[in-house]
Amino acid sequence: MTDQSKDPGAVPFDPQSLTYNDAGLVPAIAQDAGSGEVLMLAWMNAESIARTLETGRVTYWSRSRQAFWIKGETSGHAQELVELRVDCDRDCLLVLVRQTGPACHTGRPNCFYTSVREGQEVILSDPA
Amino acid sequence: MTDQSKDPGAVPFDPQSLTYNDAGLVPAIAQDAGSGEVLMLAWMNAESIARTLETGRVTYWSRSRQAFWIKGETSGHAQELVELRVDCDRDCLLVLVRQTGPACHTGRPNCFYTSVREGQEVILSDPA
Repeated sequence: MTDQSKDPGAVPFDPQSLTYNDAGLVPAIAQDAGSGEVLMLAWMNAESIARTLETGRVTYWSRSRQAFWIKGETSGHAQELVELRVDCDRDCLLVLVRQTGPACHTGRPNCFYTSVREGQEVILSDPA
Repeated sequence: MTDQSKDPGAVPFDPQSLTYNDAGLVPAIAQDAGSGEVLMLAWMNAESIARTLETGRVTYWSRSRQAFWIKGETSGHAQELVELRVDCDRDCLLVLVRQTGPACHTGRPNCFYTSVREGQEVILSDPA
């Protein structure tokens, strides 16, 4: 095949080849491709992974709404896909993104704004 | 109380206050505190969170072994806790660490060494 002759080590990626939990989901870590900031963790099923790759717009599966969640579709705080990576166990994804606006629904740049320091919770950032 | 008079905004952190899945676990993302590299994702229960905070050695719950997993206890590839952060939904952790040696059991620096590029899987790093 043409692709394989170009790069003999490459194999086609099939979202079905991942190991999903009982709900058919894998955790997906969104990381800012520029700064390295870890923005959030959400969940994807095989179809949301395929849609993310096809459209370039990061698309999760909302467990609360039981529906596809095109990040930023209503808020405008979209994530443009830069690169998708799979972990060694094939049960977790790292999604490198270009984030528009704050990633967190609270209006903060990322969801991990609560730090534990000397046994106390400390809030690291305020909503924009 | 003394601590509250020092910082009126701080509240004591209680691992029991997090939202765990049906198995009593939350996903924990390990990130290198220096480089920002996302190293791995593993799982913690309330007791492993408490042990991590008490000992400063990152301690997960192994789902396959159903046992505490002090990262690096057998391999030497330990993670020293720098900071623990909680996400907005209180159902995910970001663990900033100082990593000794490779984080991945394959001997690679991190677990996310498989990239999806133009529909093909591409291996980004080799075992040390």
